[in-house]
This record gives sequence, C-alpha cells and structure tokens, in this order.
Amino acid sequence: MELPSTTLAQAVEALASLPGVGKRSALRFALHLLNQPPEEVQELADSISKLTTDIKYCRICHSISDEDLCPICSSPKRNQSIVCVVENIQDVMAIENTQQYRGLYHVLGGVISPIDGIGIRDLNIASLIDRVREGNPSRVEEVILALPTTMEGDTTNFYLNKQLQPLGVKVTTIARGVAIGDNLEYADEITLGRSILHRIPFDKF
Amino acid sequence: MELPSTTLAQAVEALASLPGVGKRSALRFALHLLNQPPEEVQELADSISKLTTDIKYCRICHSISDEDLCPICSSPKRNQSIVCVVENIQDVMAIENTQQYRGLYHVLGGVISPIDGIGIRDLNIASLIDRVREGNPSRVEEVILALPTTMEGDTTNFYLNKQLQPLGVKVTTIARGVAIGDNLEYADEITLGRSILHRIPFDKF
Repeated sequence: MELPSTTLAQAVEALASLPGVGKRSALRFALHLLNQPPEEVQELADSISKLTTDIKYCRICHSISDEDLCPICSSPKRNQSIVCVVENIQDVMAIENTQQYRGLYHVLGGVISPIDGIGIRDLNIASLIDRVREGNPSRVEEVILALPTTMEGDTTNFYLNKQLQPLGVKVTTIARGVAIGDNLEYADEITLGRSILHRIPFDKF
Repeated sequence: MELPSTTLAQAVEALASLPGVGKRSALRFALHLLNQPPEEVQELADSISKLTTDIKYCRICHSISDEDLCPICSSPKRNQSIVCVVENIQDVMAIENTQQYRGLYHVLGGVISPIDGIGIRDLNIASLIDRVREGNPSRVEEVILALPTTMEGDTTNFYLNKQLQPLGVKVTTIARGVAIGDNLEYADEITLGRSILHRIPFDKF
C-alpha cells in the first residue's frame, strides 16, 4: 500500500515493529492518532520515549522499579529467605497475580541459549550466586527455579543447580502437571507422566 | 494488574489508548520495547510525535500530503474533471487500491452528525462547493459521492446534492449491491433489493 506522506509511512513502519502488529493495524493506529488531540499523541510519544530513559531496575532482584530497590525487595512483609528465579519481569507479574508467593524474586533477564548468543555472563547469574553466598539482603534458605520448560530453560536450571548446591541452599523447581480444569485425555504425555511421578498426598493438596 | 514502575504504567496506559489495544496488549508492547535497543524505541516515539507536527494536508482535497498539493491533485495523469467525495483518508487509500479510479478526491473529514456535534462547518464542505463553482484546479464535470451508507452518510449525501445540483455539475453515488463472491441468500434485504433495482445491462458488466 502506497502512503501519501512519508511522515505517515515512517510512523506506520515504526508502529508495525510492535509485537503482533502488522502494516494494516499500524496504519489504523497512525490514522487514529492523526484524529486525536496533539497533546494526547505527544503524551504517547513521551511515555514511550521515557521507557528508554526513566526505567530503573532493582539493585537486588533486577526487576523494574521506580526506586533503587523494588517494592518487593524493600517490603518487610516478604519472606526474604526464599528467592524465586524467573526469566523476565512478565513472570514476576504472573506469579504476583496468583497471590500465592510471599518470598523474593531474582530476574535472570533470559535463559542460557548458545543459538541466540546468550551466555552465562549475559544473564543476572553472578548476582544470584553472590546473593545466596553473602545472604543479601538476608540469609537465603531456598531458591525456587521457575524457568520455562524448554531446552534452554532446562540447561539454565541445571547450571544454576550445580552452582547453588555447594552453597548449602535448598534448590526446588515449581511443580509441573496437568493444569486445573484440563481433561487428562488432552494433556501431553510428558506433562501427564510428570504429574503421576510427582503425585502428592491427597491431604496436602 | 499492579505494575512495579510508574514509567511503565504510564506507557501501558498511553498504548492502551490505541484502537483495539487493551491493557494486556499494551503491557506486551511496553515490555517488548524495554527489550529493544533504545534508539529504536526513540525512533518510534519520534515518529509518533511527528504525526502531530509534520503532517500536512493537501490544499485542494484535504488528504494528507508531504507537499502543499498531494500527489493525486498535482498529477497531470489524473482526470481533473471528476471529484470523488469521501469521508476520510482511509477511504482515499481504499479506492486508490482498486486502481479503478483516475479522478481526484475531496476528503470531507467526517459526515454530518448532530449527535456527535459535527455540523456543516466542521467538514470540508465549503471548499468542495468553491472547488466546483470556481473550477479549481480545473472545471469539475462530475462529483461522485462515496460516503458511508449510514443515516449520517445519507444526510450528508442529501445536503451535498442539494448544494451541488444548482451549480450544473453531474452528481453520482457509487453502486451498492451484493459483493462479488457473496451468496445471494446471505445478502441483507436492502442491499439485494438495491442490486435488483439498479441492475445493469449484461454487456456493460
């Protein structure tokens, strides 16, 4: 589609770089913005621009935060002896939404993936080891690995476990099994197999 | 969902104002942008900002344009004696994509809608009348009304026809009928009725 204005074409191209947004949606966004009050459009531009300049990361867990320490790391109500290791900030939000976890987090910023050129040094792994070794902010008794069940996630789990075991910390992973509400017949074999293998006493459920 | 950063929350809120984008998609956009190179994010912000400052409108047809005159109005290849009246720029693009029309356009910028407070003075109607009366850029022989088939569109059609008829110009509207590829049984009654009423000689099809 040929656009009658290079300014519009540039905006469409930039908007089409958003995930799941094609040229048609990007054009719809741009034409919508053209009909909005200029100050609202400027506000959108500014808020996007600020993502590159104003976002800070928590000194301890590497989650995003307005302060030096994120609200979770600085909360006296959280159990500071448990650290849940996740791939990214989305995962922190997903676990927080369950309201089932009261410990702290550690955001790796990815998983080990040689194909994508992501190695151990590209992730927040050294700071996790230091955190457990030095007891920062306080003594860590358990590390929960909550990484994705992909080859990369498993590699990272394996590496972290190897580094953490000598420090005398308990290392656990989140339970995998048939999702609540799902029919057994539609669960994949590996998931169903794991949920039988790791069955739990009925009174603990 | 509570976000751990006000900068992020503001970006999510601004992105959620785009048409068809909810809070969840907006969050996905914002977190995606956080993982992009800062210069790319800044480019997106700049291109959105430029929509408020750099967009110009064609002096004759009010379509968007980089120049004082849009490429269509300034093209010697277009038939300047036919003007197609449309609601907005999207409609210009849709008709251009058919490659069936070689005349000029006139973008009204909306249709008459008392409920939304859009009156005759809010639309590019006076400039259309002037354009036909003064023969600008050249003598107009036919005005094609291609407005939406809504009550507001019909009202606007009726008003424009009343204004244009005394100027001795031919006023037409685009054909309405059963879309090509559609089954007759699924067409709505009004559309099917019109397509029978306005049937055309077989050799002209």
